[in-house]
Amino acid sequence: MTKKRIAVVGYGNIGKYSIEAIEASPDFELAGVIRRDISTEKPRELADVVVTDDISTLGKVDAALLCTPTRSVPEHAKKYLKLGINTVDSYDIHTSFLDLRRELMPIAQENNAVSIISSGWDPGSDSVVRTLLEACAPKGLTYTNFGPGMSMGHTVVAKSVGGVANALSMTIPLGTSIHRRVVYVELAPGADIEDVRKIIKSDPYFSHDETHVIAVKNIDDIIDMGHGVNLVRKGVSGKTDNQLFEFSMRINNPALTSQIMVACARASFRQKPGVYTMPEIPLIDLLYGDKESLLARLV
Amino acid sequence: MTKKRIAVVGYGNIGKYSIEAIEASPDFELAGVIRRDISTEKPRELADVVVTDDISTLGKVDAALLCTPTRSVPEHAKKYLKLGINTVDSYDIHTSFLDLRRELMPIAQENNAVSIISSGWDPGSDSVVRTLLEACAPKGLTYTNFGPGMSMGHTVVAKSVGGVANALSMTIPLGTSIHRRVVYVELAPGADIEDVRKIIKSDPYFSHDETHVIAVKNIDDIIDMGHGVNLVRKGVSGKTDNQLFEFSMRINNPALTSQIMVACARASFRQKPGVYTMPEIPLIDLLYGDKESLLARLV
Repeated sequence: MTKKRIAVVGYGNIGKYSIEAIEASPDFELAGVIRRDISTEKPRELADVVVTDDISTLGKVDAALLCTPTRSVPEHAKKYLKLGINTVDSYDIHTSFLDLRRELMPIAQENNAVSIISSGWDPGSDSVVRTLLEACAPKGLTYTNFGPGMSMGHTVVAKSVGGVANALSMTIPLGTSIHRRVVYVELAPGADIEDVRKIIKSDPYFSHDETHVIAVKNIDDIIDMGHGVNLVRKGVSGKTDNQLFEFSMRINNPALTSQIMVACARASFRQKPGVYTMPEIPLIDLLYGDKESLLARLV
Repeated sequence: MTKKRIAVVGYGNIGKYSIEAIEASPDFELAGVIRRDISTEKPRELADVVVTDDISTLGKVDAALLCTPTRSVPEHAKKYLKLGINTVDSYDIHTSFLDLRRELMPIAQENNAVSIISSGWDPGSDSVVRTLLEACAPKGLTYTNFGPGMSMGHTVVAKSVGGVANALSMTIPLGTSIHRRVVYVELAPGADIEDVRKIIKSDPYFSHDETHVIAVKNIDDIIDMGHGVNLVRKGVSGKTDNQLFEFSMRINNPALTSQIMVACARASFRQKPGVYTMPEIPLIDLLYGDKESLLARLV
């Protein structure tokens, strides 16, 4: 079997865990890591890995995992799709993923490539569960309750506030898709917690939720990448009410995101050229192995 | 919008609930009910429904829901596929659904039709969840725990035992995919509970499980079609252990089975000719509505 060669674009948490997920996949090998800035010293754990800012130096690449900040996903996706390389991202801006899907569609199709966008767990596997549960009970309500766990987006916003040296924004589920934000801040010298609290609580990221801001000495001491979800649907199957469904998980966040992105890279080789979100992909395509053997075990 | 015309084949519990699910679907209309024996009086609730033993009397039929006993599914599926009519069944014999898939494949393809087999909740939506969770954590163990709820298959076996006038076999989950069977029996006049207990406990359907046999006066008084599942996976994402997933539901069994079969009928119109199990279908195809609007809400 020829292994598919996967490039990892970006080397934050998702990039690091993606390398592990690629190494754990029997059908994949790491083509290399692509970073925008390669002038800094190469991290020790990448000693045997090609790190480059130019994908053409990696030889044949079958798919690129875009492990960059969400905002730069469109630019990277276009670049690699134009080279005929499949892309997978975890684009998580809910209001604009459909624009991204429309924008990439002709590029993917013209270059005979596949892009799977908004993969990961939410959006991603949670989207799949929400879709399945609507098929099970078309009328009704679904609640997605996150955490307790670290919100990457809210943490970035809290960190950007003047007087904050470091921050951690925790998402606490209160049920029925309502969340509390608990923001831990490491103050810069001379900063005042009351000022910081006021700015954070009035930021649009936080102003709609119950938000608490707590000063701590050292953020690194309290960061844990565990996260979770509790997704509940109560609805009607046909004309029968009170059908109850619940999906829960407690997971290492970047490890799960990366694993699902790698599974989506596998599925990308099994789709026609175009752009897909996870509910648009037959789930069996995510798995390594002979289809009939997999079905025999899973159906 | 022209509504797709759906025929219901068989009029047991699944047939009855399928009619409700069809009536609740904005894109479907009931073409009629097909029964093997139409000599008996027509049930009152079918007063306005065409009941026939000959599908050709129903006019155009786009899909047939096979709500018959599992063993007669292959015969019915072949018949309707040869007429170019899509079929959906809830075939639940785990050791032979792949044979059915292979057998129907050329028939579906030659007649430009689609067959979705083994739909419902297990096999069916549970198969989808098991597949998704293997993508989330490829290494690990999944446990499917059923109930408490009525097992249709075990109830049929218990009913067939000499001296049993009526029976109900309940499935009780003990965790890690281990189940207890509690069989309630209504004894025939003169029958001995000890004899009945011995025969049931030695039947291959029951002999591998902890089984209790209890005599009751009236089975109808204790039958409830609620059922449930608790599906658990603990596994490894990439190289990260202890990823924890859980899916649970408490549902009316025939209502859910029928609703999912109707959703699969919808998906059948969106697949290329062939035979599919649920993990082979993009889940978005199960839902009524414009794809982009659905994705905007679910992703």
